[in-house]
Amino acid sequence: MERVLVSELGNHIGKEVLLKGWVHQVRPLSKFAFLLLRDRTGIIQGIIFDEALRANLPERETVVAVHGRVKPEKQAPKGYEVEVLGVELISKPVIPLPFEVNRSLEKLNLKIDMILDHRAFSLRNPELANVFRIQAEITRTYADYMRSQGFLEIHTSKIVGTGTEGGTNLFQLQYFEKPAYLAQSPQFYKQMLVGAGYERVFEVGFVYRAEDHATSRHINEYLSLDFEMAFIENEQDVIRIEIGFIRQLFENLRRNCAEELKFYKKELPEIADIPQFPLSDARDILKKEFGKQLGDEDDLDPEGERLLCDYAKKTHNSEFAFVTMYPTSVRPFYAMPDKDNPKLTRSFDLLYKGLEVTTGGQRIHDPQMLEASIKSRGMNPASFDSYLEIFRLGMPPHGGLAIGTERLTQQVLDLDNVRQACFFPRDRYRITP
Amino acid sequence: MERVLVSELGNHIGKEVLLKGWVHQVRPLSKFAFLLLRDRTGIIQGIIFDEALRANLPERETVVAVHGRVKPEKQAPKGYEVEVLGVELISKPVIPLPFEVNRSLEKLNLKIDMILDHRAFSLRNPELANVFRIQAEITRTYADYMRSQGFLEIHTSKIVGTGTEGGTNLFQLQYFEKPAYLAQSPQFYKQMLVGAGYERVFEVGFVYRAEDHATSRHINEYLSLDFEMAFIENEQDVIRIEIGFIRQLFENLRRNCAEELKFYKKELPEIADIPQFPLSDARDILKKEFGKQLGDEDDLDPEGERLLCDYAKKTHNSEFAFVTMYPTSVRPFYAMPDKDNPKLTRSFDLLYKGLEVTTGGQRIHDPQMLEASIKSRGMNPASFDSYLEIFRLGMPPHGGLAIGTERLTQQVLDLDNVRQACFFPRDRYRITP
Repeated sequence: MERVLVSELGNHIGKEVLLKGWVHQVRPLSKFAFLLLRDRTGIIQGIIFDEALRANLPERETVVAVHGRVKPEKQAPKGYEVEVLGVELISKPVIPLPFEVNRSLEKLNLKIDMILDHRAFSLRNPELANVFRIQAEITRTYADYMRSQGFLEIHTSKIVGTGTEGGTNLFQLQYFEKPAYLAQSPQFYKQMLVGAGYERVFEVGFVYRAEDHATSRHINEYLSLDFEMAFIENEQDVIRIEIGFIRQLFENLRRNCAEELKFYKKELPEIADIPQFPLSDARDILKKEFGKQLGDEDDLDPEGERLLCDYAKKTHNSEFAFVTMYPTSVRPFYAMPDKDNPKLTRSFDLLYKGLEVTTGGQRIHDPQMLEASIKSRGMNPASFDSYLEIFRLGMPPHGGLAIGTERLTQQVLDLDNVRQACFFPRDRYRITP
Repeated sequence: MERVLVSELGNHIGKEVLLKGWVHQVRPLSKFAFLLLRDRTGIIQGIIFDEALRANLPERETVVAVHGRVKPEKQAPKGYEVEVLGVELISKPVIPLPFEVNRSLEKLNLKIDMILDHRAFSLRNPELANVFRIQAEITRTYADYMRSQGFLEIHTSKIVGTGTEGGTNLFQLQYFEKPAYLAQSPQFYKQMLVGAGYERVFEVGFVYRAEDHATSRHINEYLSLDFEMAFIENEQDVIRIEIGFIRQLFENLRRNCAEELKFYKKELPEIADIPQFPLSDARDILKKEFGKQLGDEDDLDPEGERLLCDYAKKTHNSEFAFVTMYPTSVRPFYAMPDKDNPKLTRSFDLLYKGLEVTTGGQRIHDPQMLEASIKSRGMNPASFDSYLEIFRLGMPPHGGLAIGTERLTQQVLDLDNVRQACFFPRDRYRITP
C-alpha cells in the first residue's frame, strides 16, 4: 500500500490509507484514544477504538506507520479524522525527550541555547520549523526574480587569499602550505564577473564575518543574497531591482506560504513605494522628531534605525526605509563617490522594521579612481591586482547589493533572535551542532 | 534613449537603437569598417561609413555605447546589422590584453593556468563563458526538480567542530579561540534535518576536501547538489529521484540552452533507463570484457570507470551507469549494510561518460547500529553526540546523495578540465584570483 501524506487525506475520505510520520501526541481516554500523527505536511488526528492497540500506545516522537480509514468528523480540526486500524513501530526514542515539541513556544519558554543545543529535535516544533519554509520561499523568489531580470546565477569561492574590505574581521584557515581566509562577501568576484561580460550576476551563498558581537541580530556565518549589475546610471537602478524583488517576495509569501503566515498571525502589506532618506536628512529627522543627536559623520546606531523606521511607518506607511548618500568614511573603498560632493557615496542601506537588511550602492568602475581610493585608505593597490585587472581592461559602470537572508526572515516573522532563522547558527561562542 | 540588448535587435529592424557593451572586434576596410559589439546576450555586427568615426575606431574590449540603425543585410550572420551612427567611449583598456578573447579556444591554445590567472578577462571568450550558462541551468533545474518532489531547500553551516567522515582531508580554521574545520559535506546536517521532520531536504552549497590530488577532475572546493529523503525502502528510491532529475535536466538543457549546446556542438540524448551494476559484477565485466583485473575489495579506478561506461554505452546505449552494493570497507560508517550480506552496503555511485558524478545510498537509521558502526571504525560515538541525538529520538529510514556540479557540467560539455566549470577554482596550488 502506498503512503499517503497528511495534506492529501482530504482526497481519501472513506478510504483506507497508510500514513507515516512521528507520534505528535497520544491521549488515552476511557472508551478510545487519540493519536496525533505528524508528517512533513501537517498533523492529523487519529482515533483508536481497538483495545489491543489502546493497550500498546506508542510513545510520543516514535516513528510509525499507521494503517487507518479516513472518516468525516465534524468535531475534528479538519472536518475529518483517521480511525486507526493498525500501528507499526518503525523507530522508537531511546532517550528522554529534551523538552516537549508539541506545545507553543510561549508555553515552552525555551532559552535560545536550549533550542540550538538540540537543534534537530527542536525543529519538530512546527513554530520553529515553519520559519524555514518561509526562508525557502525567500531564496526561491530571490533566484527566480533575479533570473527574470536577466541575472546569471553564480557561485564564487569562499576561500580567498586576501580580505575584501581591508583585512579586519577575517577568519583565517590553513590552505595546504598557505594561510587563507573565509570570504567576507562575494563583492570582488561579482564585480569581476560583471566585467567578464555577464553584466548581471547573482549569488546565494554564505559569507563569514569574524565579528566579536554577541547580539540577537548577529551571526558570524550568514546567507547573503547578492547581486551586481552593469550599465547603471547610479544606485537608483539597484534600488529599483530590490523594490521589485521585495514586491514579488511579499506577493509570493502571501500566495505560497499562506498557511505559515496564518500560523504566525502575520499579514504582509502590499509594497507601494519605499521612502528614501539621505543619511544627513535621517540625522535631522532623528534630532527633530525624537531628540536624538548623532555626529556629522556617524552612521545610524540600532536605536536610530528603529526610530527612522517608526518615522517611515508614520509618514509613508512603509515598514521599509532606504538610507542613502553615506559618507565615504563609513563605506568601503569601492563605493562610488557622489559627483557633486565626493565626501558622500552613491550607496545605501535598506532598513526593515528597524533592522538593516541590505547594503548596496554604485561602485567605482574607473581603474585610476579605484586605485586612488585604495591608496587613500592606506592600502597598496598591488595587493589587489587580481581584482583590479578587469577594471583595467574595460569596466562598465555598475552597482549591486547584498541582503541578509536570516535577518530578512527574522523581520518578516518578527523573531526575537536571528539565530531562529538559521538552521545551525555560528556565533561568537557556538560551532555545534 | 533606452538601451536595447543585442538579442532584442530583431524587433527593431529599421529603427534607431542604443546598444551598450564591449568592442569584440574592429576591422577597418577601404570604404567602411566593421565593429563587432558584444553584450551579455550576444554579438552584433556594426558597420561604419562615417569618416570621422572610422578615423577614431575604439580599441578591442573598450566599453562603449553605440548609437545606430538596424538594417536588414543578407550577408550579415543574423540577416541584419547595425549601421553605426555614433560611438561613445565608456571605459578603455589601460593595459595590454593578456590574450585575444575573440578567437576559438582551439586557435588560442591557452594553458589552463593562463585562463585562470586572468579569470574574469578569459570569460569574455564566449567559449569559456557559456559553460556557466549551462551550469546555471543545472543548478536551477536541480532546485526546481527537488521542490517539485516535495523537498525543502536548506543551507547548513560550512564551519564544523568535527569532520563527518573520520577526520582526514579537512581544512582547519581558527574560529575565535577554537579550532574548527570546513565541512566536507552537509551529510550530518541533512540527515539531522530529515529527522527534524522535514523528511525531504536539498542543498546547493560548497563543500571542502583538503585532498592532495592535482588532477584535471579534482578541485578542493566544489558545489555539491545534495539531497536526503525519509521513508525509503532502500537506495532504489534515491536512484529513482536522481534519474528523474537527470531526465528533467537534459530536457531543460535541450529547451533552454539550445543555443549554447549548438555552440558547443553537443546533443543530449533522451534518458531512457540507466543500467545498474553491482560492484562485483562490474569487476567481472572489466575482467571478461577488457582483461582488467581488480582486487575483491577494490573500488573502480578511473580507468575502470571509463571502461564500465564504455560497456554501458555498448550494451545499454547509456552514457550513465550506476555502480551499486559497495563493500562496507570503502564506504563511510553511516552507509546501510545489506541485510543479506552485511559486508556490502546499499550505496551507489553514478558514473557519467567515465567519471564519477554522484555518491549516494541508504543510511543507517537505527541508533544502536550506527554507534556500533562508528566503533567498528575505531572512532568514539561520544564525539558524534550532537549528530546521534536525533537518531535516538525517532529516526525514519532514509537515504540521499550528492552530485558534483562542476563535474556534471564538465561531462555535459566534454571539457578537458573540471576547472573550466568553476569560476574561481581552488586546487592544490591555487587560491587566486
